[in-house]
Amino acid sequence: MTPVPGERASGTGCSIVGVGTTEYSRASGRTALALATEASLRALDDAGIKAAEVDGIVRCTDDVVLHNDLIETLALPNVEFWAHGGLGGTAPSAMIGYAVNAIRSGSAKVVLAYRSLNGRSGRRVGAGYGSQQAVVAGGEEGGRYDEYFLPYGLTTAGQMYALIAQRHMTEFGTTREQLGHIAMTCRRNAQSNPAAQMYGRPMTMDDYFNARMISSPLGLFDYSLETDGACAVVVTSTEQGRDSKTAPIAIAAVAQGGSAGVQAGRTLSSLMRKDLLTFPSHLVAENLYRRANLGPSDIDVAQLYDCFTITVLVQLEDYGFCVKGEGGPFAASGALDTTLPINTSGGHLSEAYMHGMNHVVEGVRQLRGESTRPVPGAEVCLVSSGAPPATSAMILTVDR
Amino acid sequence: MTPVPGERASGTGCSIVGVGTTEYSRASGRTALALATEASLRALDDAGIKAAEVDGIVRCTDDVVLHNDLIETLALPNVEFWAHGGLGGTAPSAMIGYAVNAIRSGSAKVVLAYRSLNGRSGRRVGAGYGSQQAVVAGGEEGGRYDEYFLPYGLTTAGQMYALIAQRHMTEFGTTREQLGHIAMTCRRNAQSNPAAQMYGRPMTMDDYFNARMISSPLGLFDYSLETDGACAVVVTSTEQGRDSKTAPIAIAAVAQGGSAGVQAGRTLSSLMRKDLLTFPSHLVAENLYRRANLGPSDIDVAQLYDCFTITVLVQLEDYGFCVKGEGGPFAASGALDTTLPINTSGGHLSEAYMHGMNHVVEGVRQLRGESTRPVPGAEVCLVSSGAPPATSAMILTVDR
Repeated sequence: MTPVPGERASGTGCSIVGVGTTEYSRASGRTALALATEASLRALDDAGIKAAEVDGIVRCTDDVVLHNDLIETLALPNVEFWAHGGLGGTAPSAMIGYAVNAIRSGSAKVVLAYRSLNGRSGRRVGAGYGSQQAVVAGGEEGGRYDEYFLPYGLTTAGQMYALIAQRHMTEFGTTREQLGHIAMTCRRNAQSNPAAQMYGRPMTMDDYFNARMISSPLGLFDYSLETDGACAVVVTSTEQGRDSKTAPIAIAAVAQGGSAGVQAGRTLSSLMRKDLLTFPSHLVAENLYRRANLGPSDIDVAQLYDCFTITVLVQLEDYGFCVKGEGGPFAASGALDTTLPINTSGGHLSEAYMHGMNHVVEGVRQLRGESTRPVPGAEVCLVSSGAPPATSAMILTVDR
Repeated sequence: MTPVPGERASGTGCSIVGVGTTEYSRASGRTALALATEASLRALDDAGIKAAEVDGIVRCTDDVVLHNDLIETLALPNVEFWAHGGLGGTAPSAMIGYAVNAIRSGSAKVVLAYRSLNGRSGRRVGAGYGSQQAVVAGGEEGGRYDEYFLPYGLTTAGQMYALIAQRHMTEFGTTREQLGHIAMTCRRNAQSNPAAQMYGRPMTMDDYFNARMISSPLGLFDYSLETDGACAVVVTSTEQGRDSKTAPIAIAAVAQGGSAGVQAGRTLSSLMRKDLLTFPSHLVAENLYRRANLGPSDIDVAQLYDCFTITVLVQLEDYGFCVKGEGGPFAASGALDTTLPINTSGGHLSEAYMHGMNHVVEGVRQLRGESTRPVPGAEVCLVSSGAPPATSAMILTVDR
């Protein structure tokens, strides 16, 4: 994980050349397909690439919008590659990885990645699993283990992460105030981002503590937002990207990671892991740094998947920014605003819940110098996608 | 599409090195996860590769079994790549393509592809869409167009393909008897395959005509089977594959294809295409032959996706085995048993409905010389996956 001094990551040879988003709201009044189409057109316009040139599409498996649907609305004449990533928040970096692999292998040249959801007005992502589907013990699928959780009222991701937070507090003395610093950093960053849902709503530590408890120890502001909206990203080879309207942002490396016992099936069953406090991100981190020939100290800015504050805290440890157990003090030290600025658009906690895709968009904007919360001189950005039951991540760099 | 004489396809550099299946039945009595696990272990055993070496998994989006689930049951210590293909029957060749791209790009070394379903005793794939999900005109997704079909009772894939068959009959004079030849070829092939659901149940043209009509002009034996079971396939680099227990079968080329107007969103909305009689397979065929540097006359044997007989007939035209409109006479000519043997295990019509994955398995077995209906000297096999609303396909070759 230690980079060779002076040796720059050779990278994947691919870059993100366009990003686009819709308005983030709690009630879009439109279909997810309309949102996906708008974000895609904006990303293509940002890249200066005509829709007709798109020959690849990658999608999150949870998206109600299919690649087929976008082929229609964008009137794409010839799509030669598509793939789906996920589940859920683990998709975005992995999706960019599929685009990279496809471009490197000649399966496609211009790949569109999107995530669209009416996450507040439509199917609410945070709703309990039991409310969304019939659960039968030892049912058709097998392996869900939900029968071990539902009888106890354990049905939501929030409850699962609350138990992880409790364990972190017990093992390492982590405090709610330390979690609060993560929430406040995201909220502060959102105050300079007019597109953020929490723009114009600054938060003090008192506000954090006074907010209602949802699943102890996680209160309202430990939870991500619920959002209607869409994000899209265009990937090409870096060489092709140099002809684009905007500077290509190089994809230095992508990694996905998971293993038996660590990710244990579905979301809730991640609680059955032997070690609740190490996320699959430590597997991803190792591959990612090796592939990019970079290490934690090379990361200028990070967009860390923040479904909950505790998710960020554990990732700070797993990605090597501090040692295991020190995520709390690290978060409280002010580092997240200074030496390792995170979630510079506000993230899931204060910008929007785009299931990890707004982190990709902000990663690109940050390295372009277009972020509303710019990090001076930032050239290397870590973007993480998801947490248990699986993870993907990537490192973006300025193309020099 | 014309190959340069004497020049062999350089290929993707990747091969299928193991295949495995479960028993095919109408009531497995087990979870899909148990089926997927068994097929995967058999494929790994076939390859002589330990489960612990699997570092990539590709899956059909329709599969109830997640990559996460298999990571648990196979106790995989380090999975660094996963991706999902589909929808539905369009997945298998595309999934193999994701494996190829991942291996070529260094994202994984040993990739497991699987399809598992309790397709008869569990969720029946052929059930009407209306029965599976609430359909709301202009609903959350947008783009489904189901509101144009459901009021008329048009809810199943079978009905859609029946309309396509009607159009083919009207335009080109295609007959039911010609469709019957496709069904009979598959049934005949199944008679030498003890694993086939229709093994021991030969069929005459009279049987074909006497079977009950389901959606005119498609009768019972124009429809694919319903099956509980699973198939799995292991992909590695061809170089690595040469150390495997069995001869690697080279993946010469993979292609996916779709475009606006041609695939028109979801399955039923494929009926909104301007030209009902050209499937996206013609787009795929062009790329596939170009990438493999092969043409239709080089194909020794084909495993053609056969959700219905008409699907095969149209593909015979789209893949260039005969000109458009001549699929009927071509099928009736006996070519499917002689010059272009198809679906040598019995296919979906008479072996099992594994959503296109048993075609991949049979393609490998055929080129290994292990098929129960061997085609002497066969070295090049076309495998197609899916039909509207999208298609993927690949060409397998003997590794020489």
